Amino acid sequence: MEAGAMRLAIVGIGNNASALVQGIAYYDGEWEGPLPGVSRTFLGGIKITDVEIVAAFDVSSNKIGKRVVDAIFCPPNNYPDLGVTSVHASPCVSPGIDAPDDQEQIRGVADVLKKQQADVLLYSLPTGLPAMARAYAEAAIAAGVAVVNCTPDPIAGVPELMARAQEENIPLVGDDLQSHFGSSVVHGALLALLKERGVTLVGSYQLNVGGNADFNNLRSMGQGKERSKHRALRQKISSTDSVTVVPSAGFVPYLADRKVGLMSVEGRGWANMPVKIDVQLQVQDSSNAAGVIIDLVRIAALARERGEGGFPVAATPLLKSPHLVEDAQAQVKHGQELLASLADDRDD
Amino acid sequence: MEAGAMRLAIVGIGNNASALVQGIAYYDGEWEGPLPGVSRTFLGGIKITDVEIVAAFDVSSNKIGKRVVDAIFCPPNNYPDLGVTSVHASPCVSPGIDAPDDQEQIRGVADVLKKQQADVLLYSLPTGLPAMARAYAEAAIAAGVAVVNCTPDPIAGVPELMARAQEENIPLVGDDLQSHFGSSVVHGALLALLKERGVTLVGSYQLNVGGNADFNNLRSMGQGKERSKHRALRQKISSTDSVTVVPSAGFVPYLADRKVGLMSVEGRGWANMPVKIDVQLQVQDSSNAAGVIIDLVRIAALARERGEGGFPVAATPLLKSPHLVEDAQAQVKHGQELLASLADDRDD
Amino acid sequence: MEAGAMRLAIVGIGNNASALVQGIAYYDGEWEGPLPGVSRTFLGGIKITDVEIVAAFDVSSNKIGKRVVDAIFCPPNNYPDLGVTSVHASPCVSPGIDAPDDQEQIRGVADVLKKQQADVLLYSLPTGLPAMARAYAEAAIAAGVAVVNCTPDPIAGVPELMARAQEENIPLVGDDLQSHFGSSVVHGALLALLKERGVTLVGSYQLNVGGNADFNNLRSMGQGKERSKHRALRQKISSTDSVTVVPSAGFVPYLADRKVGLMSVEGRGWANMPVKIDVQLQVQDSSNAAGVIIDLVRIAALARERGEGGFPVAATPLLKSPHLVEDAQAQVKHGQELLASLADDRDD
Amino acid sequence: MEAGAMRLAIVGIGNNASALVQGIAYYDGEWEGPLPGVSRTFLGGIKITDVEIVAAFDVSSNKIGKRVVDAIFCPPNNYPDLGVTSVHASPCVSPGIDAPDDQEQIRGVADVLKKQQADVLLYSLPTGLPAMARAYAEAAIAAGVAVVNCTPDPIAGVPELMARAQEENIPLVGDDLQSHFGSSVVHGALLALLKERGVTLVGSYQLNVGGNADFNNLRSMGQGKERSKHRALRQKISSTDSVTVVPSAGFVPYLADRKVGLMSVEGRGWANMPVKIDVQLQVQDSSNAAGVIIDLVRIAALARERGEGGFPVAATPLLKSPHLVEDAQAQVKHGQELLASLADDRDD
Repeated sequence: MEAGAMRLAIVGIGNNASALVQGIAYYDGEWEGPLPGVSRTFLGGIKITDVEIVAAFDVSSNKIGKRVVDAIFCPPNNYPDLGVTSVHASPCVSPGIDAPDDQEQIRGVADVLKKQQADVLLYSLPTGLPAMARAYAEAAIAAGVAVVNCTPDPIAGVPELMARAQEENIPLVGDDLQSHFGSSVVHGALLALLKERGVTLVGSYQLNVGGNADFNNLRSMGQGKERSKHRALRQKISSTDSVTVVPSAGFVPYLADRKVGLMSVEGRGWANMPVKIDVQLQVQDSSNAAGVIIDLVRIAALARERGEGGFPVAATPLLKSPHLVEDAQAQVKHGQELLASLADDRDD
Repeated sequence: MEAGAMRLAIVGIGNNASALVQGIAYYDGEWEGPLPGVSRTFLGGIKITDVEIVAAFDVSSNKIGKRVVDAIFCPPNNYPDLGVTSVHASPCVSPGIDAPDDQEQIRGVADVLKKQQADVLLYSLPTGLPAMARAYAEAAIAAGVAVVNCTPDPIAGVPELMARAQEENIPLVGDDLQSHFGSSVVHGALLALLKERGVTLVGSYQLNVGGNADFNNLRSMGQGKERSKHRALRQKISSTDSVTVVPSAGFVPYLADRKVGLMSVEGRGWANMPVKIDVQLQVQDSSNAAGVIIDLVRIAALARERGEGGFPVAATPLLKSPHLVEDAQAQVKHGQELLASLADDRDD
Repeated sequence: MEAGAMRLAIVGIGNNASALVQGIAYYDGEWEGPLPGVSRTFLGGIKITDVEIVAAFDVSSNKIGKRVVDAIFCPPNNYPDLGVTSVHASPCVSPGIDAPDDQEQIRGVADVLKKQQADVLLYSLPTGLPAMARAYAEAAIAAGVAVVNCTPDPIAGVPELMARAQEENIPLVGDDLQSHFGSSVVHGALLALLKERGVTLVGSYQLNVGGNADFNNLRSMGQGKERSKHRALRQKISSTDSVTVVPSAGFVPYLADRKVGLMSVEGRGWANMPVKIDVQLQVQDSSNAAGVIIDLVRIAALARERGEGGFPVAATPLLKSPHLVEDAQAQVKHGQELLASLADDRDD
Repeated sequence: MEAGAMRLAIVGIGNNASALVQGIAYYDGEWEGPLPGVSRTFLGGIKITDVEIVAAFDVSSNKIGKRVVDAIFCPPNNYPDLGVTSVHASPCVSPGIDAPDDQEQIRGVADVLKKQQADVLLYSLPTGLPAMARAYAEAAIAAGVAVVNCTPDPIAGVPELMARAQEENIPLVGDDLQSHFGSSVVHGALLALLKERGVTLVGSYQLNVGGNADFNNLRSMGQGKERSKHRALRQKISSTDSVTVVPSAGFVPYLADRKVGLMSVEGRGWANMPVKIDVQLQVQDSSNAAGVIIDLVRIAALARERGEGGFPVAATPLLKSPHLVEDAQAQVKHGQELLASLADDRDD
């Protein structure tokens, strides 16, 4: 894949898009050695700065018609302005689908994708709009474009969509991304550590608060997100019966796009004596997403280039609810091996 | 090895001995399935309740002459009284070595070990007495008894002692045990997780406080312990240059034998945005030791039975400063495999 | 008031009743000096052990008919069993009101109160039953018995009830008790400290989790409780606009009757530099209530004995939403003075 | 006192000086209402921006001869560069005293103070140099200049110096400033709250870590600082026997001038049930100092102008170890009243 050739369309110009676009610009230029804060400088030979935004969709009137580099700062977006200048995100925001049953709107999106020769469509609308997720997936499949779904609304998890994608050799990557370094990652690691060391779990909780639009939508998205987070933990431990997970325990405006995860784990060690771990995790929520999106869109582009439709197993470790084609824990391990080999492969 | 056959001598009747003796009694009786709070119910076919205390040494006049089950509650010991009755710890505490250069005292200890047919000697005196550690190791070697050293004062790390042990087929297990679930375990896991996820480490600290005698000895033991803890972390990450570790940041009497580990990790993720983890770990310090001692003494007994002198590699993952016979990270991995196979082997 | 003379009726035999009854028994016997863990050993000359339970009401079939000392351990109650034997709580649990509009039921409760010569009725049903709160208050007023309301469902806050109580010289103490040492107390103190020191508040949050029935009722009770908690904070700082308070951020069964309050306060100090405080508060939730209930019922009994109807101002500092008869901050101060004088007054 | 008239000399151009100088510049210009992050916009009629740096002393060769606005950024200083331009700090750094017994050096400093018409000398060298503290105090007294000591090395606490200052009508303000919002302030407030609510204290600890030069000097300064911090807590509670305070639990370079205070408080409430508070306090260490220094130097200037020598009681609440002229708790209260009246007095 030649430089600048990874052509990305984004649905939803929110904080994730802001972090992605600004981050790509941040990593532009000369760097010695591996890029800081980045999991994989190369993935299947694709550099971070090879990713170019070629299309963008949103329904907010204050974003439509603006260039992406401007729209990313419109409210309610509140990811920081890093002061970097992007040359990878020149297009204007097109009006997206507002009636997911309207086939004409879907065809319209497909037309834009084809015209812009997009390789991958990133679906990143607010959680809680499953029909919308499906409509964009249909548009992408119609246009022959790979899909990455970073929300818990199902795309890869819709059997009919997955069947069509497999048939037409189109990669569907989803659902719901595992954050780069989020509560599920840290909580899962601690619960796994307890088990590995033979400390018996008594119970645990995980509370998340933040100040971006996601946390304000808590009521509608609560339950789907909670299920997705339990699935993420079960990649690490077999049962989460004694674990309480609250995806949004509160909307805290002053945190803006920062997110705080508060976790507690109680166990029993030798002679039934208590073991307790309390954790506070603080992250920039959308950087956490973008750090994984950058890998998922490269995996999707690579699979598309190789003509591998359906779910690319290499994406498994980066997702909270990956589409399963084999036993869950086996697929995670298999995915990790594939991902490691892609990261090493710098002369693809 | 038949039931009751693992014969243990203990040097230092402090909190570790208290936790060990009471824990063995706690696990006595009928249990369904794996024992709670225990890493390995069986190890090389040896059950926890197979471990019998057959000799004990101390220099405190308030402990000498008392039966072990009484001496474990003498001050400054402050591990809780679990209210269990032990039948595995009947001997009286013998006066131990008080002049480590006195060969007669060393011979005296060796004689007791031989007379009591001890399989393993557990060295568990306060940290900061390297000459004492060496004296007891010499007594054990003279008596043909395996040694487990749970302190950072070197035994396995003394080349001359290790050479003699190898020659005479005596296992030397050391030095300094990794706690069952201690600060090094949790801190190491978090630092490794950061690295695995591609978050760049900015810096980290680990402070430990507690109220038992160990924490009161901070000045004398500080530096050796600090080095040992850095080595433990380097089993997980290559460099600890930006990590501050304070083994005893304060003596806090009301905590008694509880220990609190306070850790903070700061990193940078996507687009240089901050990632921060703050952890409070609370454990019963001596349960944390006893939960690992129970494995180390079984490994030592097994190696002795099999005539395998020197350092048993299976002990590597349980030690902060294991004697190295191969590349450190390779030996940890190798040790984990050996340990796993010993834990499965219930019909030895 | 002579010993044993403070006659209390309890509505709702939940964890609060359990903590109250067991605590009174715990403090029975000989103590030197002030009682540990108690704010006021004497209040208006009434000792803690002067409080006797003379009537009890509940609607749970598994509690009705049992003696109070047994009913307090029925599920879903999960306050610990302290192993103390109470002689202050002999009555059996009567069936309470289940249809709050049924005047016959209300008269039935009033009859029991009169027959048992109760001085004070403690209303302690689950939050979210305002009609029930009112029905019991009517029964108490009809029987000439003082009322203490430890829930956010209004009693003192219902103008009509307050008017009748004032007319008939019956004290109404409410609403919603300030915990003995709860999140509102700690959070309020920290916010006040920030203001006092001239650090500018940026924002703050308070999340509470627990495992008792209260936390399981979160949806119904959420908003009333949230308003009540904001009012409590405004006893300390003028505006809580930038403060997010979540009374129940999650139901965490393994915590049982323990409660965890997680708070964060961000401010700006000299030269706009950040100041941040993160707090974890752990308490036994119902002990926290009982430690204040014991004062409120004594205040109520005293007011009744003195023939002072309506709201006794001395109760102000112990309530989250006190009935206001003057400017809020002035009344808090006035209440503190009255309360202090009552606590000193041991020969009443 | 007219604008620009408060003439300050600084001894020790470290982080405190950096925070002070940059902060004064930060608050320069137009502000509506009270200044953010500032305790007292006016004090005795003196505005923050009335404070002008007219002399500076240090012994570091990399600072001597530089203008103060440049010297504040020389290593090991690591307070952030706020990017503000100060017009209040034009002098060059003079070589300070390096032999505290050398009377000629002392006279040299006195001469500079007189020539520059300084009103107040701020002593802010690293802790652990009591002879140096005394030497500068002598120079100031000789020059008729008031002294503010922000270190625990005694100045106001040296009876002979205090006697001479009283005789010659020179204010001596010290010793050791209470941080604007530091561990002592927060810890003291929590311990006082426990007592006020009747929760019995079991024990408590306070650990502090940071990355500036102060934390690197821990061994020499440890004990004096610890005593000073205990005195600060005893302004709030009568006994600190069960409280462990560690002024520098570790030197953590990546924190730079940030400071973290980790506190835990354990108590017992109703029926002996546990109450636990864990706190993490994060501040910019030298902002914390400068926010109080700005008040102390104004108090000192005011007292000097009024011809009030010795210790000005208004400074009491701002110091860890104030010189006592009456009962400690009474003096704190008296000081608070005086301070409040000075803050209100804007037309002095």
